[in-house]
Amino acid sequence: MNFSSKLLEDAVEAFATLPGIGKKTALRLVLHLVGQDKLITKEFVSAIGNMREHIQKCKVCHNISDESVCNICTDKRRDETTICVVESIRDIMAIEETAQFRGMYHVLGGVISPIGGIGPDDINIKTLLERVQKGGIVEIIMAISPTIEGDTTIFYLSNQLKSFNVKISTIARGVSFGGELEYADGLTLGRSIVARTVYE
Amino acid sequence: MNFSSKLLEDAVEAFATLPGIGKKTALRLVLHLVGQDKLITKEFVSAIGNMREHIQKCKVCHNISDESVCNICTDKRRDETTICVVESIRDIMAIEETAQFRGMYHVLGGVISPIGGIGPDDINIKTLLERVQKGGIVEIIMAISPTIEGDTTIFYLSNQLKSFNVKISTIARGVSFGGELEYADGLTLGRSIVARTVYE
Repeated sequence: MNFSSKLLEDAVEAFATLPGIGKKTALRLVLHLVGQDKLITKEFVSAIGNMREHIQKCKVCHNISDESVCNICTDKRRDETTICVVESIRDIMAIEETAQFRGMYHVLGGVISPIGGIGPDDINIKTLLERVQKGGIVEIIMAISPTIEGDTTIFYLSNQLKSFNVKISTIARGVSFGGELEYADGLTLGRSIVARTVYE
Repeated sequence: MNFSSKLLEDAVEAFATLPGIGKKTALRLVLHLVGQDKLITKEFVSAIGNMREHIQKCKVCHNISDESVCNICTDKRRDETTICVVESIRDIMAIEETAQFRGMYHVLGGVISPIGGIGPDDINIKTLLERVQKGGIVEIIMAISPTIEGDTTIFYLSNQLKSFNVKISTIARGVSFGGELEYADGLTLGRSIVARTVYE
């Protein structure tokens, strides 16, 4: 692109470093900001800058947090005996959105992937084992994506957790609600027949 | 969305104010920044903030500029006798990209739109007339989108410029290069037959 302004070019380059934003989109965003009051950009910039400067990872569950311990871990109304193990912060948001779970979380920050060079020590497994070791945990729910890496991670974790007296469960897998059988993939459909539940 | 962090929520809201960026995309962008070094976000924020703080509109042609007069207007190698009138800064970039034009520009900052409540006084027409009045301009090229509003604007401008001794032209309209006749819209195809040029 042909920029007549270095300031404009730098701002476009900055936006274009973000995932999924190309040069053309970046230019549109920058020109949008240029077309508005300076105050709008000031607020935008301070919200982003402030966030990155002060945001922390919860030292208990590794969720994103404003304090050293997140507001899920400090919430006394939640069930401290159940830990839901997830891959990323986004999964916590998705589960919280459903309002079907009132226990605690543990963010692994990834899954074990021999091909990707990610071993058990690269994700937050040690802190999970420490939490269980402390006692008081009754159930651990593996809410991890049903991929090869995800299944490997669940297998590894369940082995590690064997020595503790905790129940280990995985989230149910099957045909989506509202989904049509015809369009379900074969593996999912096959497993959902094998893992059928009694109709009550 | 269910945010456990106010800082995160504010940053997501900030991104989501940008055009074409929804809450989900905003969250992805913010989490991308969280996953990287603080320095990355600092640079991002300073590029955007710095741009908005110091960027100006060229006082001659209304192009975006680092100085009070843009580097196209100050470029002595360019042809000062021709002014290309465009709707927006983005059009300048697109034309500069072609490297087919070495004259000056004038950014209207919009087109006359009675329905949208944009009259001749709301766009940079006055300054264009002043530039022509100063003398030395031989040709004015109307590089304005072929829409109803665009044509209205060209018509208005050509009327205003009648009293000056300048040639007024519009960019050629017709079937795109590489475009197939079959898929060209009827209006374009029809006009391109009427406005056929001699094959040399």
